[in-house]
Amino acid sequence: MRIEYAKGHGAMNDFVIVSALDGSPDLAPEEVRLLCERRGGIGADGVLRVTYGRFVPEWHGDPEVLFMDYHNADGSLAETCGNGLRVFAHHVIETGLVPGPEVVIATRAGLRTVWRLPDGRYKASMGRVSLSDTTTWTGVSERRFKAVAVDVGNPHAVALLRATDSLASLDLSDEPDYDHAVFPQGVNCEFSRAKQPGVVEMRVYERGVGETPACGTGVVATAVAYGYVAGMAGRELRLAVDVPGGRLDVELTDSSEAYLIGPAVITAHGVFETDE
Amino acid sequence: MRIEYAKGHGAMNDFVIVSALDGSPDLAPEEVRLLCERRGGIGADGVLRVTYGRFVPEWHGDPEVLFMDYHNADGSLAETCGNGLRVFAHHVIETGLVPGPEVVIATRAGLRTVWRLPDGRYKASMGRVSLSDTTTWTGVSERRFKAVAVDVGNPHAVALLRATDSLASLDLSDEPDYDHAVFPQGVNCEFSRAKQPGVVEMRVYERGVGETPACGTGVVATAVAYGYVAGMAGRELRLAVDVPGGRLDVELTDSSEAYLIGPAVITAHGVFETDE
Repeated sequence: MRIEYAKGHGAMNDFVIVSALDGSPDLAPEEVRLLCERRGGIGADGVLRVTYGRFVPEWHGDPEVLFMDYHNADGSLAETCGNGLRVFAHHVIETGLVPGPEVVIATRAGLRTVWRLPDGRYKASMGRVSLSDTTTWTGVSERRFKAVAVDVGNPHAVALLRATDSLASLDLSDEPDYDHAVFPQGVNCEFSRAKQPGVVEMRVYERGVGETPACGTGVVATAVAYGYVAGMAGRELRLAVDVPGGRLDVELTDSSEAYLIGPAVITAHGVFETDE
Repeated sequence: MRIEYAKGHGAMNDFVIVSALDGSPDLAPEEVRLLCERRGGIGADGVLRVTYGRFVPEWHGDPEVLFMDYHNADGSLAETCGNGLRVFAHHVIETGLVPGPEVVIATRAGLRTVWRLPDGRYKASMGRVSLSDTTTWTGVSERRFKAVAVDVGNPHAVALLRATDSLASLDLSDEPDYDHAVFPQGVNCEFSRAKQPGVVEMRVYERGVGETPACGTGVVATAVAYGYVAGMAGRELRLAVDVPGGRLDVELTDSSEAYLIGPAVITAHGVFETDE
């Protein structure tokens, strides 16, 4: 295996970027796992394969659109990735593939638009979000928190802690407890706390992954939950969410469209080569 | 910061390799930390800076000798590194800096010789080892194991488990307990078990680091401990040690000189660039 790559991250959610503009290379699951392996490979949370719609059999839209072919570190495919969209857009603008500032990107979840902002950050459309009527709970160690159920394409339970609670002291080394009747397929668990007006801090345990420095859909879900408890559901809202990987901003429109704003960084360009 | 790098590993103990043959770049601790950071940087257990003795103020030997300037991921300096020596030798042979198969490498612990073997593996001199008369103990969860104290330049407590014990079930997510009176500066803890004739399996908790896939000095210490319990102390011995990162072989001479044999792999070449 010999492959040219770029490496980048969005709020420390990191990616190996592989260019496949003529449809190759294809990436087998075992190749993705090796690329994402942090000691024997390059190391990342996932691979962003940069290609065109016409090379993706399951894509039936415009064949000329750029396609973000996202692979999880375990080799499985994912529909999309909030932080990955920004890094993908940054990469295709930086390499001159598109002029920007607006980039339309096809994903397995449909078309997404990303804008490069004047301050260098990126704003990505995250689709429509929906709040369930269900309030639920999540548990860490011996503690149990009230949580709000939010669907951002994937399920979230956002616990809203009191201002006097400590987020840092929560032990998220194991999966939090949750109501399996409400979330039979599992759930992403956010633990959040108001920090100052307009700013919330949050830690997230991603379903099947563990605690991560930033989860794009989890950040959006957190903003939706705060809008809900503030009586702002279905109204325009802008909230900053501080996660371990940095600060992200969420914009919600009055039609429940969500936008995620944050940094995108390319750190390295290289060639990866092994006998495997 | 803009830096050309190679990335490699020895039994999954991984390194960023930076060439500084004309004395530059120098690497400040914060630069080392960034390079080793697994999401925002390149990601590694340490940095191998490739330079010559004349550029290392604390080196008073031959100024023309290659010097392995080893930096831990936390930015501190280390004297040497068993797996790093093999990767360093592989790199300087591959890049044509020396013809091999024998490479003399200066380290802060003195001169080390590394040989490229006909099978492609590398054999590194690890200096003289010494066995203390002390048998001691280490503890994991509720269990306590008899251990042998070995000095390989740094202190080790090698626990020898019964063949019926399970290594895999030990929880090494926290530091094992040990006798602080015997090891006032802390100790590297190995947990080992005979696997078949001539082969031992081992897991290691490195002092100040946590569980690692391979610790070169820990592998040597384990061989010394097995030689001791087999009544072979001070005699020639060859033992294979299977660690989570792969297989390493140890040779001990009748004068207690230790040699570590194992793989060395270069996986990538690239350019790392950030605004930081």
